[in-house]
Amino acid sequence: MNHLALADIVARALNEDLQQGDITSESIFQEPLPARGLFLAKSAGVIAGIPVVEEVFRQLDPKACCKWLITDGTPVSPGTTVGEVNADIRTVLSGERVALNFLQRLSGIATQTARLVRLTAGYSVRIVDTRKTTPGLRMLEKYAVRQGGGFNHRYSLADAVLIKDNHIAAAGSINAAVERARKNIPHTTSIEVEVENETQVREALAAKVECILLDNMTPAEMTAMVRLIRSQSGTRHIFIEASGNIGESNIAEVAATGVDIISSGALTHSVKALDVSLEIASQS
Amino acid sequence: MNHLALADIVARALNEDLQQGDITSESIFQEPLPARGLFLAKSAGVIAGIPVVEEVFRQLDPKACCKWLITDGTPVSPGTTVGEVNADIRTVLSGERVALNFLQRLSGIATQTARLVRLTAGYSVRIVDTRKTTPGLRMLEKYAVRQGGGFNHRYSLADAVLIKDNHIAAAGSINAAVERARKNIPHTTSIEVEVENETQVREALAAKVECILLDNMTPAEMTAMVRLIRSQSGTRHIFIEASGNIGESNIAEVAATGVDIISSGALTHSVKALDVSLEIASQS
Amino acid sequence: MNHLALADIVARALNEDLQQGDITSESIFQEPLPARGLFLAKSAGVIAGIPVVEEVFRQLDPKACCKWLITDGTPVSPGTTVGEVNADIRTVLSGERVALNFLQRLSGIATQTARLVRLTAGYSVRIVDTRKTTPGLRMLEKYAVRQGGGFNHRYSLADAVLIKDNHIAAAGSINAAVERARKNIPHTTSIEVEVENETQVREALAAKVECILLDNMTPAEMTAMVRLIRSQSGTRHIFIEASGNIGESNIAEVAATGVDIISSGALTHSVKALDVSLEIASQS
Amino acid sequence: MNHLALADIVARALNEDLQQGDITSESIFQEPLPARGLFLAKSAGVIAGIPVVEEVFRQLDPKACCKWLITDGTPVSPGTTVGEVNADIRTVLSGERVALNFLQRLSGIATQTARLVRLTAGYSVRIVDTRKTTPGLRMLEKYAVRQGGGFNHRYSLADAVLIKDNHIAAAGSINAAVERARKNIPHTTSIEVEVENETQVREALAAKVECILLDNMTPAEMTAMVRLIRSQSGTRHIFIEASGNIGESNIAEVAATGVDIISSGALTHSVKALDVSLEIASQS
Amino acid sequence: MNHLALADIVARALNEDLQQGDITSESIFQEPLPARGLFLAKSAGVIAGIPVVEEVFRQLDPKACCKWLITDGTPVSPGTTVGEVNADIRTVLSGERVALNFLQRLSGIATQTARLVRLTAGYSVRIVDTRKTTPGLRMLEKYAVRQGGGFNHRYSLADAVLIKDNHIAAAGSINAAVERARKNIPHTTSIEVEVENETQVREALAAKVECILLDNMTPAEMTAMVRLIRSQSGTRHIFIEASGNIGESNIAEVAATGVDIISSGALTHSVKALDVSLEIASQS
Amino acid sequence: MNHLALADIVARALNEDLQQGDITSESIFQEPLPARGLFLAKSAGVIAGIPVVEEVFRQLDPKACCKWLITDGTPVSPGTTVGEVNADIRTVLSGERVALNFLQRLSGIATQTARLVRLTAGYSVRIVDTRKTTPGLRMLEKYAVRQGGGFNHRYSLADAVLIKDNHIAAAGSINAAVERARKNIPHTTSIEVEVENETQVREALAAKVECILLDNMTPAEMTAMVRLIRSQSGTRHIFIEASGNIGESNIAEVAATGVDIISSGALTHSVKALDVSLEIASQS
Repeated sequence: MNHLALADIVARALNEDLQQGDITSESIFQEPLPARGLFLAKSAGVIAGIPVVEEVFRQLDPKACCKWLITDGTPVSPGTTVGEVNADIRTVLSGERVALNFLQRLSGIATQTARLVRLTAGYSVRIVDTRKTTPGLRMLEKYAVRQGGGFNHRYSLADAVLIKDNHIAAAGSINAAVERARKNIPHTTSIEVEVENETQVREALAAKVECILLDNMTPAEMTAMVRLIRSQSGTRHIFIEASGNIGESNIAEVAATGVDIISSGALTHSVKALDVSLEIASQS
Repeated sequence: MNHLALADIVARALNEDLQQGDITSESIFQEPLPARGLFLAKSAGVIAGIPVVEEVFRQLDPKACCKWLITDGTPVSPGTTVGEVNADIRTVLSGERVALNFLQRLSGIATQTARLVRLTAGYSVRIVDTRKTTPGLRMLEKYAVRQGGGFNHRYSLADAVLIKDNHIAAAGSINAAVERARKNIPHTTSIEVEVENETQVREALAAKVECILLDNMTPAEMTAMVRLIRSQSGTRHIFIEASGNIGESNIAEVAATGVDIISSGALTHSVKALDVSLEIASQS
Repeated sequence: MNHLALADIVARALNEDLQQGDITSESIFQEPLPARGLFLAKSAGVIAGIPVVEEVFRQLDPKACCKWLITDGTPVSPGTTVGEVNADIRTVLSGERVALNFLQRLSGIATQTARLVRLTAGYSVRIVDTRKTTPGLRMLEKYAVRQGGGFNHRYSLADAVLIKDNHIAAAGSINAAVERARKNIPHTTSIEVEVENETQVREALAAKVECILLDNMTPAEMTAMVRLIRSQSGTRHIFIEASGNIGESNIAEVAATGVDIISSGALTHSVKALDVSLEIASQS
Repeated sequence: MNHLALADIVARALNEDLQQGDITSESIFQEPLPARGLFLAKSAGVIAGIPVVEEVFRQLDPKACCKWLITDGTPVSPGTTVGEVNADIRTVLSGERVALNFLQRLSGIATQTARLVRLTAGYSVRIVDTRKTTPGLRMLEKYAVRQGGGFNHRYSLADAVLIKDNHIAAAGSINAAVERARKNIPHTTSIEVEVENETQVREALAAKVECILLDNMTPAEMTAMVRLIRSQSGTRHIFIEASGNIGESNIAEVAATGVDIISSGALTHSVKALDVSLEIASQS
Repeated sequence: MNHLALADIVARALNEDLQQGDITSESIFQEPLPARGLFLAKSAGVIAGIPVVEEVFRQLDPKACCKWLITDGTPVSPGTTVGEVNADIRTVLSGERVALNFLQRLSGIATQTARLVRLTAGYSVRIVDTRKTTPGLRMLEKYAVRQGGGFNHRYSLADAVLIKDNHIAAAGSINAAVERARKNIPHTTSIEVEVENETQVREALAAKVECILLDNMTPAEMTAMVRLIRSQSGTRHIFIEASGNIGESNIAEVAATGVDIISSGALTHSVKALDVSLEIASQS
Repeated sequence: MNHLALADIVARALNEDLQQGDITSESIFQEPLPARGLFLAKSAGVIAGIPVVEEVFRQLDPKACCKWLITDGTPVSPGTTVGEVNADIRTVLSGERVALNFLQRLSGIATQTARLVRLTAGYSVRIVDTRKTTPGLRMLEKYAVRQGGGFNHRYSLADAVLIKDNHIAAAGSINAAVERARKNIPHTTSIEVEVENETQVREALAAKVECILLDNMTPAEMTAMVRLIRSQSGTRHIFIEASGNIGESNIAEVAATGVDIISSGALTHSVKALDVSLEIASQS
């Protein structure tokens, strides 16, 4: 994870909540008081976001000190202590919400990713994210997907060519779109084409693309397309990706079709935060 | 909505996706081609985020032109056309994902808010958000809550004093915490105290706070506490807020207790994106 | 004080003076030479700005080391040594002007605040600032007011509702303005109304606002209005603020009227810098 | 005035006051309402800051429209209408304070500069500012000095060499300091030396500096030093600057000594804001 | 070209030269004076940077107006008029140097690229750049390469895997490095391996990489390696890149070896600016 | 060198190359592995940029540690070890290109400057740069010129008045331009005038400018002009600068004319990078 980018994201989050200070903690606690805040999981899930929490408290007070009992990517059950922050009580309480907003969201993403990974265990298939991430948090959300055992699709619109229905329609054909793209892109850039039916799959094969995305097909259709692609691509391995209405109920069936990759926008666009809380340990 | 802050949020989102350009659209379309992109709701919900979408396309191309058939806060059904963007096809396709990432998320928040508002119709109660917002998007998410018919709680840690269990424990008592706060805060700043039982309610009343937050109580307990507070506060109106495990299944029951405000973190921390798509209209 | 915001303000000030370096010190001193710069008060006043001076030298050279004999908020007389900076002579001389520009201005504010506080000693009244602060320095100037023994009014336009003559005129009446505001603002936000005569005071009372600002009244009028408000507000405490043409000559008289708060724009809009200098100690 | 730098300064000022909106105006005025705000001088002085006010309203709403009856640098008497802003009432009221904070401060500087210029009328002497400006506002404050009829001294530490007592002490002598500086600086950079007595003046002359600053001398001493310098500098014109404890009471006497330049830190470090107000014109 | 990124680069360049204004033009021209500045090529080459020049003048004055007789990518001979800027004389003269600094540098890159392209005419080979670009200007320099008829290699370290000698040494073998990379990267990311001899070429082939970079080989070695790769890669097209000590004298020979791509760091790290000047047209 | 500005330049360069990480190093090296990278000169030249390289690695990892065997300004021969960086292998490899891009370019500038300085050895003449620097890197490039033994001309358009042909033409005459400038600029600002013939030299002398730039003259003409200027300027020293088509072949001849300064735009606009490489030391 790019530390400079992380620091910037955290600074903005703190600025949003704390630009003018924490009037509650600052008015009540006018003298230093050391405190120990425990991060406790209150639901089962997979933790992600520990470096972000560290950066939150580091920015609030360079002397704040975090200790962790687990690392990102570790499954937790309700009651698990994730780690702690030691700092002045004002630092702990002022940073609590921002820290938890990151930790809960990222852990929510890791948790859901892990669930999909588990449901496809045994198949040689990758669960990958999309660009349907929260604006401003893409780097963190893609990190959380990896912590949950998933993989990343392209990071931005510059990383790979992905030709969709609108491109095809406007360009006239898959072949025209691929040809124009190939003529202009760096030789290190791959081309993926989104297809909806066998005709398009054949066009994509003819255009010698590196990846084919089967969009909104039934498992039966996918199985047929995988077979077609494999039989036509000779020594080349074409990556086959499935997407569209794939959820917990049907993901295993999709994995069984032989696709290489299953992508899910919901991993990041419809996140259920993992319940993690911060509790002040009693000073003994 | 603060336009400068909006412009900054959008610029960052575009930078995340487009800093090095859109290699697909730019390599395929080397000549200008006017396009018309329609925003279509594909599920029922409430729309929020139109000014954000406008800003996305305005930043990509000042000559891009959006037209809207509805305004933010309007309920839509599947198939409703929300509006359109007219611009060069590269502008439309390059901005599509960022625009939808905003629109889907904010509409998801407005939709869920409207659902809770509807469930409490007939009661004089406000549905409000919390500070459990997505880091970097608080301004937009609080805007979306208002579009769904909800209200906002404090924006940041500087806007009001909210004394929680950790503050009370460390300060020694509700009274001590309130007194210390009152001595230091501006005279225009209100104090709210989070309480868990009748003893604490009575302490809060004695401390003459402006708002009392009933945390994790049953509806029966809340009803009793509302009665107690109303009977003790003379000519003053004390705002009574309920929070903790309040969802679609029990919110009407909570509203019936007579509280003024029901706050819900899930409105913003566990959002289900509303399904909205961008479709290129065929040029006739 | 928010450290990240402080660092940003200081960085901009240094950039203004030093973006291309200090051609005098750098051309004369090409070799390291340790120096000790003493901050000496040359007039009587109250010091404010020590953390800002520290940040100035810390940014110029992380190894620069400041020591302080007093803290912010301490009264000084001419000749008092406030503290010192130890660093290479180029660092000391290059940072001198920026450090003093902050220290002199903030100490000037603290000094004038302390003067008003002293003049109202014995009365239970707060001296508060306004939003008439220097653009870009509000956080620091409000901090300086607190160091002088004053209190802060709202920080920004989002922190409290303050309804003034222009709002009342455009809304039609105090009641209309308050009602519309109350319907939309968070429950934690207070409403203050600026009034000019008894009729308006009665309207404000009827509208149940939390604070009333008596604008440009004579002490006799204020006394009458305080009595009226206290007699009409039952168990509620309404904050009464006085403002308008209140200076050293008449502030005690205003305090005697029983108002809770006296606000003064001049505290920040017409500052006389406190004379503080930096002198290089001779190396013995 | 550098427009990009101006836009940045204004954006920061607006951010300070309006980052989270203007809760008063926005809650009271939910519908558009055109308004006309008049800027009225309430004291006599010289106006400066009109382009800053324009930028404030332009940033709040590109459609806001300002008209001005006078230009910066014009003297006004109490009651003079300076100009007006036409915009939605929320724009006018939300921007009022930031606009006035700039206008009052800059006009205060121009006013005091003009007073010193008037007091030295008839002498061929320049009134100039110093680097004792408000952190973050140097560009604007130096602009205001020019509007008042004054001139600017160096803008930053990179613009000219100014050798002061601390430099001389550490370098060993005026000659040593000048020599070292001359060896390293660009050929286009001038050297000014601050001197306190005749010996130092003679050293500065011998070092062939371009400018000599007479610090804290009496008018009689200055007269003698001016004569000495003029008699020794042959065909070269050496700029002679006076500074230190020069105010309204003695500035004419200083001007009569024949110095070229009188500099005053108080022009910017101890400003009295000019009283200018914004009044909403009644709509007829 | 990403307009927001362009605007940022230009703003920084202007800030560097003009933060405190153009003291020459502003002091000489105190009144508006329309001027017409002509951009004239004084050497033969290929022009690149017109949108950058436009942005320079647009930022200085939104009303400045540029007209162009040619487009980027056009060859010019000495004396060719490239275009003109119409604006106030202060705008034209203040922006001249920044505009030319961009235009001369980018045209220098386009010119040298075009020279290499011309020398390899007739071969199906691409001339591509590297990441040896000027810090801060990569986007513009890669754009200039395209205007000269070249192509771009990967933009940043995230766009493709390029395994070099240091990676291979530390990983143990080409196979180990490729395998580890393949396990972690997105399926849309290609792998290129830098090889120095036939053994390494065979290892790269065995690892099924997408691209092979022949580093510092003689044309004869390259010819042999191209033949080897083509014979071993079946239906897959492996991109073969040549780099290392390839200049004008030997590039045609390299192109004749059958490689797909020739990359040259010198295109951007050792640029000779194209001589273009700005001349003020006499007003008739 | 201004450290804050340096940090900003480096951060932008890293962002350009590494915003989304280094997919090669991160995917291959998933565990920490200490590495030692040696900076080796591969051509003869003068090194400049060591503090920049340090900042690159410091930003990537605060624990990275650089050691240097030489300082900036030192001549090196092929094979000289300049220094080393010790850090995790990912840090070393990820920062390599950005570090070398700076080091090679700045050393290229220092090398060429040193060459011109050497060619004019024995003459009391300064080799100076111009404002023809790479946008965004002026501070570093001017630093590199000094490391090569050169001097700096004005940094920006605010540092000195330099009146060129376009200014003279538009103002009507040298005298008019100088007079208008002198009336408005700070007394510490020098005036230089660019002249093309003896008539203009005489006008410049009459206008009592501080510096005269002889543009595009032959050595014989320069000699005559130097003699003229020296004979006319009495006790004043007028700086005489030569520029225009001065390169390695004729610079000694120009130096012999007696000019004080020779400026060369090519020092920064047409740089040949010095060949320096980073090699990973084998771990023993």
